[in-house]
Amino acid sequence: MKAIDLAAKLATFTELWQPRVVGAFNGHDILVAKVQGEFVWHRHEETDDLFLVLAGRITIRLRDGDISVGPGELFVVPRGVEHCPVAVEEAHLLLLERRGTPNTGDPATAAPRREI
Amino acid sequence: MKAIDLAAKLATFTELWQPRVVGAFNGHDILVAKVQGEFVWHRHEETDDLFLVLAGRITIRLRDGDISVGPGELFVVPRGVEHCPVAVEEAHLLLLERRGTPNTGDPATAAPRREI
Repeated sequence: MKAIDLAAKLATFTELWQPRVVGAFNGHDILVAKVQGEFVWHRHEETDDLFLVLAGRITIRLRDGDISVGPGELFVVPRGVEHCPVAVEEAHLLLLERRGTPNTGDPATAAPRREI
Repeated sequence: MKAIDLAAKLATFTELWQPRVVGAFNGHDILVAKVQGEFVWHRHEETDDLFLVLAGRITIRLRDGDISVGPGELFVVPRGVEHCPVAVEEAHLLLLERRGTPNTGDPATAAPRREI
């Protein structure tokens, strides 16, 4: 067992909006992701969605307003709440979601879960 | 709703080994803590224990070896595994534990859970 170096994990891939699983916690996936541009509006009915910004800045659009999240800040989107993450410049994220959660909210359109 | 600025939350208190609740995620407490020195050996039978180092460095002693965790690194102590966190200099942590988990593994000796 050893510590997980999040920056080192992020350095192993370049694809945007394709979270990689780096660990596990109480039935949840711990993921890192690189994002830039606008994702899709979606919701997760079965899980809260934790975003911790490691580098850069994102905006989490909600139907009733925007949440700006910068480095060292986190935001939890409650389950069932529609949201659309957006990043003007590339941002690096730590994510926590119940294991197997489709990143788009829909298994048909979700990026496959890959471990690194 | 707004983002949680972890450094700003940490700036509101000075006590060591007294995690503060800053948010919630799927039945878990999201906590920040300042630590220095040696904690007590303990285990949590009902929850994994996630440590993300925000500043400084800690060693998580396990019965079969030490795990060094620096800034931007995380480590999950599996449930039931005895551990003893140690920090030579002050370190700042993000912690994730099932809601209500006593920080020492024992409600009788645990720091009270305080929200900030």
